[in-house]
Amino acid sequence: MADTKANIGVVGMAVMGKNLALNIESRGFTVGIYNRTASKTEVVMKDHADKNLVPSYSVEDFVKSLETPRRIVMMVKAGKPTDAVIDELLPLLDKGDILIDGGNTNFHNTMERNAKLDKSGINFIGMGVSGGELGALHGPSLMPGGQEEAYKLVEPVLTKIAAKAKDGKPCVSYIGPNGAGHYVKMVHNGIEYGDEQLIDESYDILRNGAGIDIDELANIFKDWNKGELNSYLIEITADILTRKDDLGADKNKPIVDMILDRGANKGTGKWSSEDAMEVGTDQSVITESVYARFISMLKDERLAASKVLNGPKASDIISEDDKKDLVEKVRKALYFGKIMSYAQGFEQLRFASENYDWNLKFGELAQIWREGCIIRAQFLQNITDAFAKNENLTNLLLDPYFADIANKYQQDARDVVALAVKAGIPVPSLSAAVNYYDSYRATVLPANLLQAQRDYFGAHTYERTDREGNFHYPWYTEQ
Amino acid sequence: MADTKANIGVVGMAVMGKNLALNIESRGFTVGIYNRTASKTEVVMKDHADKNLVPSYSVEDFVKSLETPRRIVMMVKAGKPTDAVIDELLPLLDKGDILIDGGNTNFHNTMERNAKLDKSGINFIGMGVSGGELGALHGPSLMPGGQEEAYKLVEPVLTKIAAKAKDGKPCVSYIGPNGAGHYVKMVHNGIEYGDEQLIDESYDILRNGAGIDIDELANIFKDWNKGELNSYLIEITADILTRKDDLGADKNKPIVDMILDRGANKGTGKWSSEDAMEVGTDQSVITESVYARFISMLKDERLAASKVLNGPKASDIISEDDKKDLVEKVRKALYFGKIMSYAQGFEQLRFASENYDWNLKFGELAQIWREGCIIRAQFLQNITDAFAKNENLTNLLLDPYFADIANKYQQDARDVVALAVKAGIPVPSLSAAVNYYDSYRATVLPANLLQAQRDYFGAHTYERTDREGNFHYPWYTEQ
Repeated sequence: MADTKANIGVVGMAVMGKNLALNIESRGFTVGIYNRTASKTEVVMKDHADKNLVPSYSVEDFVKSLETPRRIVMMVKAGKPTDAVIDELLPLLDKGDILIDGGNTNFHNTMERNAKLDKSGINFIGMGVSGGELGALHGPSLMPGGQEEAYKLVEPVLTKIAAKAKDGKPCVSYIGPNGAGHYVKMVHNGIEYGDEQLIDESYDILRNGAGIDIDELANIFKDWNKGELNSYLIEITADILTRKDDLGADKNKPIVDMILDRGANKGTGKWSSEDAMEVGTDQSVITESVYARFISMLKDERLAASKVLNGPKASDIISEDDKKDLVEKVRKALYFGKIMSYAQGFEQLRFASENYDWNLKFGELAQIWREGCIIRAQFLQNITDAFAKNENLTNLLLDPYFADIANKYQQDARDVVALAVKAGIPVPSLSAAVNYYDSYRATVLPANLLQAQRDYFGAHTYERTDREGNFHYPWYTEQ
Repeated sequence: MADTKANIGVVGMAVMGKNLALNIESRGFTVGIYNRTASKTEVVMKDHADKNLVPSYSVEDFVKSLETPRRIVMMVKAGKPTDAVIDELLPLLDKGDILIDGGNTNFHNTMERNAKLDKSGINFIGMGVSGGELGALHGPSLMPGGQEEAYKLVEPVLTKIAAKAKDGKPCVSYIGPNGAGHYVKMVHNGIEYGDEQLIDESYDILRNGAGIDIDELANIFKDWNKGELNSYLIEITADILTRKDDLGADKNKPIVDMILDRGANKGTGKWSSEDAMEVGTDQSVITESVYARFISMLKDERLAASKVLNGPKASDIISEDDKKDLVEKVRKALYFGKIMSYAQGFEQLRFASENYDWNLKFGELAQIWREGCIIRAQFLQNITDAFAKNENLTNLLLDPYFADIANKYQQDARDVVALAVKAGIPVPSLSAAVNYYDSYRATVLPANLLQAQRDYFGAHTYERTDREGNFHYPWYTEQ
């Protein structure tokens, strides 16, 4: 054991934990590290012998190695492994110590753990960490939720290790009590699913619909990345499309064509849609992106179905005339779709904030997503600005900047969706975006007929346009 | 107390319980009835003095009034009231007695109660009951799940009180263990949401898009009800559209125009979408119908948005030429959408059956929905037939009858969705239907690009088209 106490400890020396520890160390802190399997810690110490790392090979030594109040970041698998670490640490901790869960934990579990540990006087921060392995090392976007006074004690570390936006502000802020941090991370991941699906549908229309060559397409995405779509995901898509296969017989084949079209998921997008249902908001763009992954997994069924279910041939539908301005139309449709997806995401956050009593600061959330995380984009500055102008903004679409773009691009979005639907190219998230827009701006929806139906078969009553109250119509009386 | 023991008991004398008790009595059974508030029981006895009803005014007397093994149907509010009744009854019951929960209970709760009561030797059947008040009285569709040997003891009663299909078969069968019955009822309700939304979108396109007069529209729905769309919901929609306001100043106004367009929901459609997420199936048509209700509730926001967000004027987009065959096109689109919705619903049931180990018999489910319930329709005979032909059918779309209709109608569905999207009329469920069809029949989806993206930013690995295994591409190495 070292003589000097470490400023902060990290449990879990898999790649995320290791990189986060190295990030913290690089900002001038001494970091205690611990892993259940000692060999992992030994490897880290061997590879980074010159760093201010204090390794421990028992949990008791680890806890003793930290200055008090102890600050311990757990970077372990969500679920049982997290509970196992907490159970190991708990008897060794003192009141006022701070446990930080940096895993991809479901916010319900974080709420429970926060309440349970709070009874023992231990602070518990559930912290969303986005940016992947490289983000963890060089600067992630951090979303910590839990006791605010505990956050204050880790803030000096977190602001130093977080990514920095162009204006120099660190991509971290106090999100809210108990599960708020992991909730916001969950919605971040849902939004990420939506972004990816919108990009993938745009790619599909241009490549498989309009027959644009993959090299040209790589340049189109590169070009898009210079404008208002500028973002990490557009940037890597452009790069992906230039890459050739590294394993197959033909090394000139695009790698994307060698990848099986089964889209996996690790659950956070799914959770986001589930909780949108719970809090009662329309999350159609993201939900369709989750469903798109589900249906992509049914590869064998899809191949069987493709033999018996007909559709148009895209090349018969998309004319040379359509192709002329299609790239620009798709660009606008993609940006339009992105605006709808974020409008829904922030609406979900607004409902959740009320439902769980979190007092989320929406502008700050957009602000800390500007760098470090997977959805980082120029666009997030516009959202930050929108909430700075009006912190009570109920929906992004009511902000003048976004309303203006939506108004300008809605026609292109309609054209692209109509063309894809006619051409047999699935565009579930782009369609959901247009339908959300048209539902949100509808003065009258056919829900009046729905209420009549519900009152008819179930006597569920209906509200009226001309007076307050709930009414039942005498449907079973002939008029 | 009566001298003869009652054959079966019903707890809860609100309208559903009362009607179910009267239904059972009408089939030649003596029915014990009980309600926590005695006055409700007294009213039933006063109104039905000539019936073989055995009233009890204490739970002890009620339990004593029943022949053994006791069969008790609880028709009380789902949630805490159900637990309260169980807690009251439990100390008075004997091993082998059968408790039946006929409420709209979440299947998770039914699974828990079944397991808990089973430990005391009490059988617990969670039974979906559909058909509203009149169905309960004259013949509902019943979906009982629980111990099969217990079901056998109530089967003689249930088959007598259930609705009868045209072929004389009762609309009840043993669904499966523990929560299976309430699960199937939940999916039934989700499907019902989808049916309603598809009808409402069709109505919206024809009335507010094409400007068809409401009286003509009533006849169109009446006409549709004579063909393959024949169903209870189409029938009542036709009737609703003929009805005039009974309360307002102008009694000639269609009632539907006096109803506020805020679509309420009682949760079961939401649960269905949530569990589709859990078991991992695409439930887009139903989920969009749930979202449509959510967004309809934001009436004030929508009115504010309508002032700042632009869209086309439907009458400028839908030409006289479009209108010529639009009614028939919408009819086909609606039937196409219905097929997609049920294909998704039965796919969810297939995944759930495996996930929860229920061994659901899909053909029987379609069979017992043919009459008695809200989604009753001629169409359900076709689903029954499809599973009779092939009990291992993985998806309705792979059945020749449904594949044939989908092939014939897909073009009309595309035309209708494209036209509505261009005209600014929200069609979230119809769009989801077409996108589901195109995704399900896609040989290659852009999920290959998605997997590249996931491997790029998160090292999540990807599968290949040319070999088994999981691979990681060296994205960070320049080629």
